[in-house]
Amino acid sequence: MDRPVDQPLAILAGGGALPLEVAEAARSAGRRVVVVGIRGEADAAIEAFGAQWVEWGQVGRLLDLLAAEHCRDLLLVGGVVRRPDFRSVASDFGTVRRLPKILAALSGGDDGLLRRVIGLLESEGLRVLSVPEVAPALVLANGPVGRRSPEAAHRADIARGLSLLVALGPFDVGQAAIVAGGRIVAIEGAEGTDALIDRYRAVRTAGRITRDAQGVLVKASKPQQDRRVDLPVIGPETVRRAADAGLAGIAAEAGQVLVVRRQETRAAADAAGLFVVGVDVGAVDGGLPR
Amino acid sequence: MDRPVDQPLAILAGGGALPLEVAEAARSAGRRVVVVGIRGEADAAIEAFGAQWVEWGQVGRLLDLLAAEHCRDLLLVGGVVRRPDFRSVASDFGTVRRLPKILAALSGGDDGLLRRVIGLLESEGLRVLSVPEVAPALVLANGPVGRRSPEAAHRADIARGLSLLVALGPFDVGQAAIVAGGRIVAIEGAEGTDALIDRYRAVRTAGRITRDAQGVLVKASKPQQDRRVDLPVIGPETVRRAADAGLAGIAAEAGQVLVVRRQETRAAADAAGLFVVGVDVGAVDGGLPR
Repeated sequence: MDRPVDQPLAILAGGGALPLEVAEAARSAGRRVVVVGIRGEADAAIEAFGAQWVEWGQVGRLLDLLAAEHCRDLLLVGGVVRRPDFRSVASDFGTVRRLPKILAALSGGDDGLLRRVIGLLESEGLRVLSVPEVAPALVLANGPVGRRSPEAAHRADIARGLSLLVALGPFDVGQAAIVAGGRIVAIEGAEGTDALIDRYRAVRTAGRITRDAQGVLVKASKPQQDRRVDLPVIGPETVRRAADAGLAGIAAEAGQVLVVRRQETRAAADAAGLFVVGVDVGAVDGGLPR
Repeated sequence: MDRPVDQPLAILAGGGALPLEVAEAARSAGRRVVVVGIRGEADAAIEAFGAQWVEWGQVGRLLDLLAAEHCRDLLLVGGVVRRPDFRSVASDFGTVRRLPKILAALSGGDDGLLRRVIGLLESEGLRVLSVPEVAPALVLANGPVGRRSPEAAHRADIARGLSLLVALGPFDVGQAAIVAGGRIVAIEGAEGTDALIDRYRAVRTAGRITRDAQGVLVKASKPQQDRRVDLPVIGPETVRRAADAGLAGIAAEAGQVLVVRRQETRAAADAAGLFVVGVDVGAVDGGLPR
C-alpha cells in the first residue's frame, strides 16, 4: 500500500457482523476508523465506533462526511439486502450535483453495478480498498478451521460442487451450491446462502432427495469478482444453519472467502461435528477435479 | 413403432395432470389403456380409467398386473415427489423374488437411477415408451403458444438462460432458471420449478433484485435426459404461478418439454399477458447465443 496506515480509514457499513469486525481489525492495526452505516442495512452495534448514518443513495452526504474526516481510503463492507435504484437516490445537494454520474452508475443493469459505483467513488478522489488488504486475518486459508476434515465421499462432493461453480463462472451467479451423494441438490441465485441451506433442508425433509448421503455446502468467489466488494462470507450462523439442516460440512474457496468471528465459527463447527474447510479451486480444472 | 397400436398400453402414473392427459391421448388414438397409479403420488382422477394402485416399490405387483392385462408396452408418466429407496421396497412375493435386481437398480446413487429402473423393467420383457411416441401432440413446438411473443430484452434473457442451462448440462441438474434484465436470478435444483418461481417472487418482493426488469422462466431438458422419463412439463398452473410472481413469460425447449392442458395453458397466458414460447436450444452454441 502506498498510503501510510496513519491515514484514517472509512468503512461504509452494510449488514451483518463483518463491518464491525473489519473496523476492530483496522483499529487493532493502529488505524483511525470512521464508520458510516447505511440505514436499514447496517447493525446498530457499529455505533460503538461512533458511526454516522446515511440513507441509501445519499452519495453527497457520504462524500461530505468523508471529506470532513479527511478520509481518502474507503472500504465497502457488509451485506446489502435492498438494491439501490433511481428512486432511492436521496435529495441532498451534493447528491443532486453528482446526479448525472450517479444515474450513469445506476443504469446499465445489475452487471457491473458495484464496479461502476467504485468508479464513481474513485472519480471523487477516494481509494476503495478490499477487506483482505485491511484485515488479512479474516481471509479463509487452506485446510480445516475446526477439528474435522471431510472424508473421501465429501471430498468428491466438494470437487463436484467446485466444478459446478467454475462452470457457472461466466454467468456472474452461483457463489454456492449444495451437493449430496454426488448429486447437485441446490444452486444459489440471488436469494443468498441462508435460503440455499434452508432449501436443502426442505427438499431433504420432503424426501425429494435421498437421506442416506449428507450434503456439503460449497462456496467460492466468482471469477469476475472484485475483491473490493462482496467477497463471500461464512461465520457461526452459517455453521449453525448448516448443522440444523443436516449438512456434513462447509467447503469454501481459500483466499477468496471471509470468515467472521472465527473462534465462534470453529467452536460451532466442533460442537456440531461439522467440517469447515478452505479448499483450492485451482485443483479443479476444465470442470473436472484433477 | 414396430408394435401395433392395438396392443394395450400400460401407464404407470405419478403425480400431476400428465398421466390422465397421456391416457386420454392414447385412448383417442384407439389404444386400450391400463392405468396403474403409484399410491401417494398419482391423482385420484386416474380412476376414471379404472386405475389400479401399487405402493412405491411393489415391483412384483406391478409386473403381475401388467401380465394379467397382457401389456408389453409401458409408459412411466407424472411427477414423483418421494424418491424410492431400500426401505420403500414393499413385501409382495414377486418383489422379493426380484430383490437382487431391484436392489442393484436402487443402489449406486441417484445418477442413472431411472435408467436402471428402465433396465429392470426391460429385463422383464417390457418395452418402455416415451410420451412423445405415444402422445406427440403434448410436445411443445417452436414458437408462441398464446398471443404474445417475447420482446428483444426478453429474447436476450432467454438466450442467457439457455446458455446457462447448456453449461449446467454435464452436472445433471438445472432444468430451469429465471433471468431478469440480463441477470440470472434463480437456478433450479432438486426443489422443482414451482419452488423456483416462488423464489423469484420472494427475492423480488424483498428488493434483492431490481423490479425494473421482469424475469423470464427458461426451461430445457438435460442433455443426458432419457425421453422415456421425466421430460420437463409446463401447464396452466405453471403459467398462473409465473404470472402471480410477476414474470414476463416462459420459454421452454421445443421438442423436449411437454405442455399439459394446452388450451387452458394458452388461455391462462393470454389472460395474464404472459408469453409462452417454444425455443430451439440449438440456437445457443458454446455457451453464447449465436
